[in-house]
Amino acid sequence: MKEVIAVVRMNMMNKTKAALTEAGVDAFFAHEAQGRGKGFVNAALVEGAESGYEEAAAVLGEKGKLYPKRMVTAVVPDDLVEEVVEAITAANQTGKPGDGKIFILPIGDAVRVRTSETGASAIA
Amino acid sequence: MKEVIAVVRMNMMNKTKAALTEAGVDAFFAHEAQGRGKGFVNAALVEGAESGYEEAAAVLGEKGKLYPKRMVTAVVPDDLVEEVVEAITAANQTGKPGDGKIFILPIGDAVRVRTSETGASAIA
Amino acid sequence: MKEVIAVVRMNMMNKTKAALTEAGVDAFFAHEAQGRGKGFVNAALVEGAESGYEEAAAVLGEKGKLYPKRMVTAVVPDDLVEEVVEAITAANQTGKPGDGKIFILPIGDAVRVRTSETGASAIA
Repeated sequence: MKEVIAVVRMNMMNKTKAALTEAGVDAFFAHEAQGRGKGFVNAALVEGAESGYEEAAAVLGEKGKLYPKRMVTAVVPDDLVEEVVEAITAANQTGKPGDGKIFILPIGDAVRVRTSETGASAIA
Repeated sequence: MKEVIAVVRMNMMNKTKAALTEAGVDAFFAHEAQGRGKGFVNAALVEGAESGYEEAAAVLGEKGKLYPKRMVTAVVPDDLVEEVVEAITAANQTGKPGDGKIFILPIGDAVRVRTSETGASAIA
Repeated sequence: MKEVIAVVRMNMMNKTKAALTEAGVDAFFAHEAQGRGKGFVNAALVEGAESGYEEAAAVLGEKGKLYPKRMVTAVVPDDLVEEVVEAITAANQTGKPGDGKIFILPIGDAVRVRTSETGASAIA
């Protein structure tokens, strides 16, 4: 069992949800986040912040450096991970910076609250 | 040390928080999320999306398919996991779809920022 | 590869972001959360809730018990974890309750959607 977390563009949520559904994932959740990837950082600002300039730190922190994103999380059986990752990638890959990231985390166990089921059947 | 993540109904937050406190968990955090479980998906829409109909993908994505939820996260010692899971389950189990899910994830370490404590004492 | 999750005060985001950047972390994401740590719970309310008083449970749940926080997540190589944790701690440690927590979780794999890169190069 794995947790697949995808950070994607706001306007790619529909495509991502459809891709997950097509890959056999019925259950998932999502929330808003702000994020940034490599390549969006002005080196001069970093130097300024390191030198103790509050203004540089503030600009690094506040001004357009974090972009609105959607974080989508699905918990899937091990044998579905590869397909799910490929589906999310195919739905979101434009080749431009900001396409997003996918992280795969181990899950110890899951519980379906309605039935108290645990393990594989909790997410089946 | 484990991270216990519960996705519950919005209106169950009070009961969930009280259940966590009663189970000995003083420290936790929560945020809003949208989610859906198995059984909420219209097969015709999935087929439409697979056939490339933008409208079907949009409906799958946008229209009432994701429900507002609360995600509650607590990091607890291993020997408290079972009790915490049972407390959350007891507080949220109505037997109807939408009762939610609980996920248990391994945690490598924790740090209490105030004191720089790590390990078990960081979450004690 | 590890996921470093920091729960910090709202007004410490700029300092935290600058600290992450200085520690060599260019890519991270953040979202709002509500949380509470140890020491914010009124024992009489807990007893009341345990005795079945709805009012006590409601107060425990609703009234000022969860504080607005920011959750910041960075996925970093193993050899950067210690430096990142120290940087976040240094930026957020005031010595007062509410300084926050840091959690370190194992990551199985990562994918950069733009290039389909996986593993270390996905987060380099």
